[in-house]
Amino acid sequence: MDYKIAETKVRITADNDLAAEQVRKQLASRHTLLVNLMASPGAGKTTTLLRTITALKDTYRIGVMEADVDSDVDAKAISELGVRVIQLHTGGSCHMDADMTMRGLEEMGYEDLDLIFLENVGNLVCPAEFDVGAGLKVMILSVPEGDDKPLKYPLMFTVSDIMLINKIDTVSIFDFDFDAAEERAKALNPKIEVFPLSSKTGEGFDAWIEALKKRIEEAIA
Amino acid sequence: MDYKIAETKVRITADNDLAAEQVRKQLASRHTLLVNLMASPGAGKTTTLLRTITALKDTYRIGVMEADVDSDVDAKAISELGVRVIQLHTGGSCHMDADMTMRGLEEMGYEDLDLIFLENVGNLVCPAEFDVGAGLKVMILSVPEGDDKPLKYPLMFTVSDIMLINKIDTVSIFDFDFDAAEERAKALNPKIEVFPLSSKTGEGFDAWIEALKKRIEEAIA
Repeated sequence: MDYKIAETKVRITADNDLAAEQVRKQLASRHTLLVNLMASPGAGKTTTLLRTITALKDTYRIGVMEADVDSDVDAKAISELGVRVIQLHTGGSCHMDADMTMRGLEEMGYEDLDLIFLENVGNLVCPAEFDVGAGLKVMILSVPEGDDKPLKYPLMFTVSDIMLINKIDTVSIFDFDFDAAEERAKALNPKIEVFPLSSKTGEGFDAWIEALKKRIEEAIA
Repeated sequence: MDYKIAETKVRITADNDLAAEQVRKQLASRHTLLVNLMASPGAGKTTTLLRTITALKDTYRIGVMEADVDSDVDAKAISELGVRVIQLHTGGSCHMDADMTMRGLEEMGYEDLDLIFLENVGNLVCPAEFDVGAGLKVMILSVPEGDDKPLKYPLMFTVSDIMLINKIDTVSIFDFDFDAAEERAKALNPKIEVFPLSSKTGEGFDAWIEALKKRIEEAIA
Protein backbone atom coordinates (compact mmCIF):
# COMPACT_ATOMS: atom_id res chain seq x y z
CA MET A 1 0.00 0.00 0.00
CA ASP A 2 1.23 3.47 -0.85
CA TYR A 3 1.20 6.43 1.54
CA LYS A 4 0.84 10.18 1.25
CA ILE A 5 3.25 12.83 2.47
CA ALA A 6 1.70 15.99 3.93
CA GLU A 7 3.78 19.00 4.88
CA THR A 8 2.43 20.40 8.14
CA LYS A 9 3.27 23.82 9.36
CA VAL A 10 6.70 25.20 10.19
CA ARG A 11 7.10 26.75 13.60
CA ILE A 12 9.51 29.62 13.28
CA THR A 13 11.95 29.73 16.18
CA ALA A 14 12.68 33.08 17.70
CA ASP A 15 15.82 34.62 16.33
CA ASN A 16 18.29 34.64 19.15
CA ASP A 17 21.39 35.06 17.00
CA LEU A 18 22.22 38.49 18.34
CA ALA A 19 22.20 37.29 21.94
CA ALA A 20 24.28 34.27 20.94
CA GLU A 21 26.89 36.53 19.33
CA GLN A 22 27.12 38.50 22.57
CA VAL A 23 27.70 35.32 24.57
CA ARG A 24 30.37 34.22 22.10
CA LYS A 25 32.11 37.61 22.16
CA GLN A 26 32.03 37.79 25.94
CA LEU A 27 33.55 34.34 26.32
CA ALA A 28 36.17 34.91 23.62
CA SER A 29 37.34 38.04 25.43
CA ARG A 30 37.84 35.90 28.54
CA HIS A 31 39.53 33.07 26.60
CA THR A 32 36.89 30.64 27.78
CA LEU A 33 35.49 27.75 25.75
CA LEU A 34 31.78 27.04 26.10
CA VAL A 35 30.75 23.54 25.01
CA ASN A 36 27.08 22.95 24.23
CA LEU A 37 26.41 19.25 24.90
CA MET A 38 23.24 17.93 23.28
CA ALA A 39 21.53 14.52 23.01
CA SER A 40 18.30 12.60 23.45
CA PRO A 41 17.21 11.70 26.98
CA GLY A 42 19.24 8.75 28.19
CA ALA A 43 22.01 8.96 25.58
CA GLY A 44 24.54 9.45 28.37
CA LYS A 45 25.19 13.19 28.60
CA THR A 46 25.85 13.24 32.33
CA THR A 47 27.94 10.07 32.39
CA THR A 48 30.02 11.38 29.50
CA LEU A 49 30.44 14.68 31.26
CA LEU A 50 31.52 13.03 34.51
CA ARG A 51 34.27 11.06 32.79
CA THR A 52 35.34 13.99 30.62
CA ILE A 53 35.60 16.35 33.58
CA THR A 54 37.56 13.77 35.56
CA ALA A 55 40.10 13.65 32.72
CA LEU A 56 40.43 17.44 32.48
CA LYS A 57 39.84 18.93 35.90
CA ASP A 58 43.45 18.91 37.04
CA THR A 59 44.50 20.81 33.90
CA TYR A 60 41.71 23.32 33.38
CA ARG A 61 39.37 25.45 35.47
CA ILE A 62 35.94 24.01 34.69
CA GLY A 63 32.36 25.09 35.20
CA VAL A 64 29.16 23.22 34.37
CA MET A 65 25.67 24.50 33.65
CA GLU A 66 23.10 21.74 34.00
CA ALA A 67 19.93 22.59 32.10
CA ASP A 68 16.86 20.56 32.96
CA VAL A 69 13.15 20.98 32.61
CA ASP A 70 13.01 20.03 36.25
CA SER A 71 15.07 18.17 38.90
CA ASP A 72 18.67 18.59 39.93
CA VAL A 73 19.88 14.99 39.95
CA ASP A 74 22.60 15.72 37.37
CA ALA A 75 23.91 18.80 39.15
CA LYS A 76 24.25 16.76 42.32
CA ALA A 77 26.34 14.11 40.54
CA ILE A 78 28.57 16.69 38.83
CA SER A 79 29.09 18.78 41.96
CA GLU A 80 30.69 15.78 43.64
CA LEU A 81 33.66 16.17 41.28
CA GLY A 82 34.46 19.48 42.96
CA VAL A 83 33.95 21.66 39.88
CA ARG A 84 31.68 24.70 39.82
CA VAL A 85 28.09 23.75 38.93
CA ILE A 86 24.88 25.64 38.41
CA GLN A 87 21.50 24.01 37.87
CA LEU A 88 19.32 25.83 35.34
CA HIS A 89 15.62 25.04 35.40
CA THR A 90 14.13 25.84 32.02
CA GLY A 91 10.62 25.91 33.48
CA GLY A 92 9.15 23.60 30.87
CA SER A 93 11.20 24.83 27.92
CA CYS A 94 12.62 22.06 25.78
CA HIS A 95 15.94 23.76 25.05
CA MET A 96 18.34 26.47 26.19
CA ASP A 97 18.56 29.72 24.25
CA ALA A 98 21.25 32.41 24.30
CA ASP A 99 19.52 34.65 26.86
CA MET A 100 19.09 31.78 29.28
CA THR A 101 22.74 30.85 28.72
CA MET A 102 23.94 34.38 29.47
CA ARG A 103 21.90 34.46 32.66
CA GLY A 104 23.32 31.07 33.65
CA LEU A 105 26.89 32.24 33.02
CA GLU A 106 26.34 35.36 35.11
CA GLU A 107 24.72 33.44 37.96
CA MET A 108 27.51 30.87 37.98
CA GLY A 109 30.39 33.28 37.43
CA TYR A 110 32.57 32.49 34.42
CA GLU A 111 35.39 35.06 34.29
CA ASP A 112 37.96 32.77 35.89
CA LEU A 113 37.13 29.59 33.96
CA ASP A 114 38.86 27.95 30.97
CA LEU A 115 36.10 25.56 30.05
CA ILE A 116 32.35 25.58 30.57
CA PHE A 117 30.00 22.75 29.70
CA LEU A 118 26.35 23.42 29.09
CA GLU A 119 24.46 20.16 29.44
CA ASN A 120 21.42 21.01 27.37
CA VAL A 121 17.91 19.60 27.88
CA GLY A 122 17.62 16.00 26.66
CA ASN A 123 16.16 16.53 23.22
CA LEU A 124 17.43 15.76 19.73
CA VAL A 125 15.24 18.37 18.03
CA CYS A 126 14.85 21.78 19.66
CA PRO A 127 18.34 22.46 21.08
CA ALA A 128 19.72 22.16 17.54
CA GLU A 129 17.64 25.17 16.52
CA PHE A 130 18.97 27.54 19.16
CA ASP A 131 22.49 28.95 19.02
CA VAL A 132 23.52 29.56 22.62
CA GLY A 133 26.85 31.16 21.71
CA ALA A 134 28.96 28.08 22.33
CA GLY A 135 32.40 27.75 20.78
CA LEU A 136 31.91 24.03 20.35
CA LYS A 137 28.77 21.97 19.77
CA VAL A 138 28.99 18.34 20.77
CA MET A 139 26.18 15.83 20.31
CA ILE A 140 25.85 12.29 21.56
CA LEU A 141 24.16 9.51 19.65
CA SER A 142 23.95 6.31 21.67
CA VAL A 143 24.05 2.84 20.15
CA PRO A 144 20.61 1.79 21.47
CA GLU A 145 19.00 4.72 19.63
CA GLY A 146 19.97 3.33 16.23
CA ASP A 147 22.13 4.36 13.27
CA ASP A 148 19.17 5.88 11.39
CA LYS A 149 18.87 8.95 13.61
CA PRO A 150 20.72 11.33 11.23
CA LEU A 151 17.96 10.62 8.70
CA LYS A 152 15.19 11.44 11.13
CA TYR A 153 16.66 14.34 13.12
CA PRO A 154 18.98 15.92 10.54
CA LEU A 155 19.41 19.39 12.04
CA MET A 156 21.24 18.17 15.15
CA PHE A 157 23.82 16.38 13.00
CA THR A 158 24.08 19.36 10.67
CA VAL A 159 24.92 21.92 13.36
CA SER A 160 27.24 19.86 15.59
CA ASP A 161 31.05 19.99 15.40
CA ILE A 162 31.55 16.64 17.10
CA MET A 163 29.41 13.50 17.33
CA LEU A 164 30.15 11.06 20.12
CA ILE A 165 28.72 7.59 19.51
CA ASN A 166 28.17 6.42 23.07
CA LYS A 167 27.46 3.03 24.67
CA ILE A 168 29.68 1.09 22.25
CA ASP A 169 29.94 -1.52 25.02
CA THR A 170 26.34 -2.52 24.17
CA VAL A 171 26.88 -3.05 20.46
CA SER A 172 26.66 -6.84 20.69
CA ILE A 173 22.92 -6.69 21.43
CA PHE A 174 21.90 -3.85 19.13
CA ASP A 175 21.99 -3.67 15.35
CA PHE A 176 24.12 -0.58 14.95
CA ASP A 177 26.18 0.10 11.82
CA PHE A 178 28.94 2.57 12.74
CA ASP A 179 29.89 3.25 9.13
CA ALA A 180 26.27 3.94 8.20
CA ALA A 181 25.82 6.32 11.14
CA GLU A 182 28.99 8.21 10.26
CA GLU A 183 28.18 8.34 6.54
CA ARG A 184 24.69 9.65 7.25
CA ALA A 185 26.02 12.33 9.59
CA LYS A 186 28.76 13.34 7.16
CA ALA A 187 26.29 13.55 4.28
CA LEU A 188 24.63 16.33 6.29
CA ASN A 189 27.82 17.81 7.69
CA PRO A 190 31.13 16.77 6.09
CA LYS A 191 33.19 18.50 8.81
CA ILE A 192 31.68 16.63 11.76
CA GLU A 193 34.25 14.69 13.81
CA VAL A 194 33.09 11.30 15.06
CA PHE A 195 34.30 9.48 18.18
CA PRO A 196 32.84 6.11 19.16
CA LEU A 197 33.22 5.55 22.89
CA SER A 198 31.74 4.15 26.05
CA SER A 199 31.22 6.51 28.95
CA LYS A 200 30.62 3.46 31.12
CA THR A 201 33.88 1.60 30.40
CA GLY A 202 36.04 4.48 29.15
CA GLU A 203 36.80 2.76 25.84
CA GLY A 204 37.48 5.29 23.09
CA PHE A 205 37.79 8.20 25.50
CA ASP A 206 41.43 9.07 24.75
CA ALA A 207 40.72 10.25 21.19
CA TRP A 208 37.77 12.37 22.30
CA ILE A 209 39.72 13.95 25.17
CA GLU A 210 42.61 14.68 22.80
CA ALA A 211 40.29 16.41 20.32
CA LEU A 212 38.64 18.40 23.08
CA LYS A 213 41.99 19.47 24.55
CA LYS A 214 42.99 20.82 21.15
CA ARG A 215 39.86 22.96 21.07
CA ILE A 216 40.40 24.16 24.63
CA GLU A 217 44.02 25.13 23.90
CA GLU A 218 42.90 27.13 20.86
CA ALA A 219 40.29 28.95 22.93
CA ILE A 220 42.44 29.81 25.93
CA ALA A 221 45.53 30.79 23.90
CA MET B 1 30.89 21.81 46.48
CA ASP B 2 27.41 23.27 46.52
CA TYR B 3 25.51 24.48 43.48
CA LYS B 4 22.95 27.14 42.71
CA ILE B 5 19.54 26.69 41.13
CA ALA B 6 18.41 29.40 38.72
CA GLU B 7 14.90 29.47 37.26
CA THR B 8 15.19 30.49 33.61
CA LYS B 9 12.26 31.63 31.61
CA VAL B 10 9.08 29.73 30.86
CA ARG B 11 8.09 29.46 27.24
CA ILE B 12 4.34 29.51 27.11
CA THR B 13 2.99 27.01 24.62
CA ALA B 14 0.19 28.12 22.37
CA ASP B 15 -3.19 27.06 23.63
CA ASN B 16 -4.49 24.49 21.23
CA ASP B 17 -7.06 23.02 23.57
CA LEU B 18 -10.02 24.17 21.50
CA ALA B 19 -8.69 22.48 18.35
CA ALA B 20 -7.92 19.34 20.38
CA GLU B 21 -11.50 19.23 21.64
CA GLN B 22 -12.74 19.40 18.05
CA VAL B 23 -10.52 16.48 17.05
CA ARG B 24 -11.73 14.49 20.04
CA LYS B 25 -15.40 15.25 19.31
CA GLN B 26 -15.05 14.42 15.63
CA LEU B 27 -13.42 11.07 16.35
CA ALA B 28 -15.89 10.21 19.12
CA SER B 29 -18.78 10.79 16.71
CA ARG B 30 -17.14 8.26 14.35
CA HIS B 31 -16.37 5.79 17.17
CA THR B 32 -12.70 5.93 16.33
CA LEU B 33 -9.86 5.74 18.86
CA LEU B 34 -6.85 7.97 18.25
CA VAL B 35 -3.70 6.86 20.09
CA ASN B 36 -0.94 9.44 20.54
CA LEU B 37 2.33 7.49 20.78
CA MET B 38 5.22 9.45 22.27
CA ALA B 39 8.84 8.71 23.22
CA SER B 40 12.46 9.81 22.90
CA PRO B 41 14.25 9.14 19.62
CA GLY B 42 15.27 5.50 19.49
CA ALA B 43 12.97 4.28 22.27
CA GLY B 44 11.29 1.95 19.78
CA LYS B 45 8.10 3.70 18.68
CA THR B 46 8.08 2.25 15.18
CA THR B 47 9.05 -1.28 16.21
CA THR B 48 6.36 -1.24 18.90
CA LEU B 49 3.84 0.01 16.39
CA LEU B 50 4.74 -2.68 13.84
CA ARG B 51 4.21 -5.47 16.34
CA THR B 52 1.06 -3.89 17.79
CA ILE B 53 -0.52 -3.42 14.37
CA THR B 54 0.34 -6.98 13.40
CA ALA B 55 -1.57 -8.18 16.48
CA LEU B 56 -4.64 -6.04 15.74
CA LYS B 57 -4.96 -5.59 12.01
CA ASP B 58 -7.19 -8.61 11.39
CA THR B 59 -9.66 -7.39 14.01
CA TYR B 60 -9.75 -3.62 13.50
CA ARG B 61 -9.54 -1.12 10.64
CA ILE B 62 -6.32 0.73 11.35
CA GLY B 63 -4.69 3.93 10.11
CA VAL B 64 -1.30 5.37 11.01
CA MET B 65 -0.04 8.94 10.94
CA GLU B 66 3.75 9.07 11.01
CA ALA B 67 4.98 12.46 12.21
CA ASP B 68 8.61 13.26 11.54
CA VAL B 69 10.69 16.38 11.31
CA ASP B 70 11.94 14.92 8.08
CA SER B 71 12.29 11.54 6.28
CA ASP B 72 9.71 8.85 5.64
CA VAL B 73 11.60 5.73 6.71
CA ASP B 74 8.97 4.85 9.31
CA ALA B 75 6.02 5.29 6.96
CA LYS B 76 7.68 2.94 4.50
CA ALA B 77 8.06 0.25 7.16
CA ILE B 78 4.49 0.62 8.39
CA SER B 79 2.95 0.68 4.91
CA GLU B 80 4.34 -2.80 4.30
CA LEU B 81 1.81 -4.12 6.82
CA GLY B 82 -0.97 -3.13 4.45
CA VAL B 83 -2.64 -0.60 6.74
CA ARG B 84 -3.41 2.97 5.72
CA VAL B 85 -0.45 5.29 6.38
CA ILE B 86 0.20 8.98 5.99
CA GLN B 87 3.58 10.62 6.52
CA LEU B 88 3.36 14.04 8.18
CA HIS B 89 6.37 16.28 7.89
CA THR B 90 6.36 18.78 10.71
CA GLY B 91 8.80 21.05 8.89
CA GLY B 92 11.18 21.41 11.81
CA SER B 93 8.55 21.43 14.54
CA CYS B 94 9.42 19.23 17.50
CA HIS B 95 5.89 18.00 18.14
CA MET B 96 2.41 17.58 16.66
CA ASP B 97 -0.39 19.92 17.68
CA ALA B 98 -4.14 19.55 17.27
CA ASP B 99 -4.36 21.55 14.02
CA MET B 100 -1.66 19.46 12.38
CA THR B 101 -3.43 16.33 13.63
CA MET B 102 -6.78 17.42 12.15
CA ARG B 103 -5.10 18.11 8.81
CA GLY B 104 -3.39 14.74 8.91
CA LEU B 105 -6.68 12.97 9.66
CA GLU B 106 -8.40 14.74 6.77
CA GLU B 107 -5.57 14.01 4.34
CA MET B 108 -5.50 10.35 5.35
CA GLY B 109 -9.25 9.84 5.62
CA TYR B 110 -10.45 8.52 8.97
CA GLU B 111 -14.22 8.05 8.76
CA ASP B 112 -14.03 4.30 8.16
CA LEU B 113 -11.34 3.48 10.74
CA ASP B 114 -11.61 1.98 14.24
CA LEU B 115 -8.12 2.79 15.40
CA ILE B 116 -5.60 5.46 14.42
CA PHE B 117 -2.06 5.69 15.71
CA LEU B 118 -0.23 8.99 15.67
CA GLU B 119 3.48 8.28 15.95
CA ASN B 120 4.60 11.61 17.33
CA VAL B 121 8.03 13.23 16.78
CA GLY B 122 10.75 11.55 18.85
CA ASN B 123 10.90 13.87 21.82
CA LEU B 124 10.22 13.39 25.52
CA VAL B 125 9.52 17.06 26.19
CA CYS B 126 7.42 19.01 23.68
CA PRO B 127 4.80 16.46 22.58
CA ALA B 128 3.70 16.18 26.22
CA GLU B 129 2.69 19.85 26.15
CA PHE B 130 0.36 19.63 23.17
CA ASP B 131 -3.00 17.91 23.38
CA VAL B 132 -3.73 16.56 19.89
CA GLY B 133 -7.21 15.32 20.77
CA ALA B 134 -6.22 11.68 21.23
CA GLY B 135 -8.43 9.33 23.22
CA LEU B 136 -5.37 7.54 24.56
CA LYS B 137 -1.84 8.77 25.27
CA VAL B 138 0.83 6.10 25.29
CA MET B 139 4.47 6.77 26.04
CA ILE B 140 7.48 4.51 25.73
CA LEU B 141 10.44 4.57 28.08
CA SER B 142 13.20 2.23 26.95
CA VAL B 143 15.52 0.42 29.34
CA PRO B 144 18.74 1.99 27.93
CA GLU B 145 17.39 5.47 28.72
CA GLY B 146 17.37 4.79 32.44
CA ASP B 147 14.85 4.60 35.27
CA ASP B 148 15.42 8.23 36.33
CA LYS B 149 13.59 9.74 33.36
CA PRO B 150 10.32 10.46 35.23
CA LEU B 151 12.35 12.73 37.51
CA LYS B 152 13.85 14.66 34.61
CA TYR B 153 10.97 14.82 32.12
CA PRO B 154 7.97 14.75 34.47
CA LEU B 155 5.28 16.17 32.18
CA MET B 156 5.36 13.23 29.74
CA PHE B 157 4.76 10.79 32.59
CA THR B 158 2.08 13.05 34.07
CA VAL B 159 -0.05 13.28 30.92
CA SER B 160 0.23 9.69 29.63
CA ASP B 161 -2.40 7.01 30.24
CA ILE B 162 -0.03 4.13 29.56
CA MET B 163 3.74 3.72 29.91
CA LEU B 164 5.40 0.94 27.96
CA ILE B 165 8.85 0.05 29.28
CA ASN B 166 10.50 -1.22 26.11
CA LYS B 167 13.68 -3.19 25.38
CA ILE B 168 13.38 -5.39 28.47
CA ASP B 169 15.51 -7.92 26.55
CA THR B 170 18.51 -5.62 27.19
CA VAL B 171 18.09 -5.39 30.94
CA SER B 172 21.09 -7.61 31.70
CA ILE B 173 23.52 -4.95 30.48
CA PHE B 174 21.80 -1.82 31.80
CA ASP B 175 21.14 -0.76 35.37
CA PHE B 176 17.40 -0.35 35.24
CA ASP B 177 15.17 -0.63 38.29
CA PHE B 178 11.63 -1.42 37.11
CA ASP B 179 10.07 -0.76 40.50
CA ALA B 180 11.82 2.61 40.75
CA ALA B 181 10.69 3.62 37.25
CA GLU B 182 7.09 2.65 38.00
CA GLU B 183 7.10 4.32 41.42
CA ARG B 184 8.49 7.53 39.96
CA ALA B 185 5.90 7.57 37.19
CA LYS B 186 3.06 6.81 39.61
CA ALA B 187 4.19 9.53 41.98
CA LEU B 188 3.45 11.93 39.11
CA ASN B 189 0.42 10.10 37.78
CA PRO B 190 -1.17 7.45 40.02
CA LYS B 191 -3.48 6.26 37.22
CA ILE B 192 -0.75 5.44 34.68
CA GLU B 193 -0.76 1.80 33.56
CA VAL B 194 2.68 0.23 33.13
CA PHE B 195 3.62 -2.60 30.75
CA PRO B 196 7.22 -3.84 30.53
CA LEU B 197 7.82 -5.46 27.13
CA SER B 198 10.21 -6.05 24.30
CA SER B 199 9.14 -4.99 20.83
CA LYS B 200 12.05 -6.99 19.50
CA THR B 201 11.21 -10.35 21.08
CA GLY B 202 7.50 -9.87 21.79
CA GLU B 203 7.90 -10.61 25.50
CA GLY B 204 5.23 -8.84 27.55
CA PHE B 205 3.14 -7.92 24.52
CA ASP B 206 0.02 -9.88 25.47
CA ALA B 207 -0.80 -7.70 28.47
CA TRP B 208 -0.32 -4.49 26.47
CA ILE B 209 -2.44 -5.73 23.56
CA GLU B 210 -5.16 -6.81 25.99
CA ALA B 211 -5.22 -3.38 27.63
CA LEU B 212 -5.29 -1.65 24.26
CA LYS B 213 -8.11 -3.86 23.00
CA LYS B 214 -10.17 -2.88 26.03
CA ARG B 215 -9.72 0.79 25.14
CA ILE B 216 -10.55 0.19 21.49
CA GLU B 217 -13.73 -1.71 22.40
CA GLU B 218 -14.85 1.14 24.63
CA ALA B 219 -14.22 3.65 21.84
CA ILE B 220 -15.95 1.77 19.02
CA ALA B 221 -18.94 0.63 21.12
